[in-house]
Amino acid sequence: MPNYVFNVDVTLRKAVLDPQGKAVHHAARTLGYASIAEIRIGKHIEITCSAENETDARKTVEELAGRLLANPVTEDFRVELRRDHVDAHRSAAPSREV
Amino acid sequence: MPNYVFNVDVTLRKAVLDPQGKAVHHAARTLGYASIAEIRIGKHIEITCSAENETDARKTVEELAGRLLANPVTEDFRVELRRDHVDAHRSAAPSREV
Repeated sequence: MPNYVFNVDVTLRKAVLDPQGKAVHHAARTLGYASIAEIRIGKHIEITCSAENETDARKTVEELAGRLLANPVTEDFRVELRRDHVDAHRSAAPSREV
Repeated sequence: MPNYVFNVDVTLRKAVLDPQGKAVHHAARTLGYASIAEIRIGKHIEITCSAENETDARKTVEELAGRLLANPVTEDFRVELRRDHVDAHRSAAPSREV
């Protein structure tokens, strides 16, 4: 079965305070970056999932993200397939039709 | 000056061990997700930068990411403009031509 690599970005909801982002923003201004207006920090997770097709892989990853990776009260998440990795797999597959 | 919003994804280099990712991977398998082959965890940072144009904004954000957000020995980073936010700005601009 092919491997699909997904990027999952977990972000704090707009209404939730982000003290880590505020601290980094303060550090940036101290370093002289006055044009930075806001910094918010979340998690970036790369998940490799083995499945028959993209739809099955995405379903598994979305379910996992909702159950294990994001806090449903304070966080949102976005799942995105990494096209580079799918192509890399396809060009290496022995059963590929030319 | 318009605001530009960038996503900065900071990831551990391939050769660097990721114990946090390993722990989440183990938890996923314990929950029954046997098809997950690998999980790697990094940071997802949203930076709002005020600048004359996209090029200046990107230069500032890339410099900041290299100096403050990513560890140059163990981490890589990728900077991406969020198109949705630029469009939102443009459609609200009073000088827009229809």
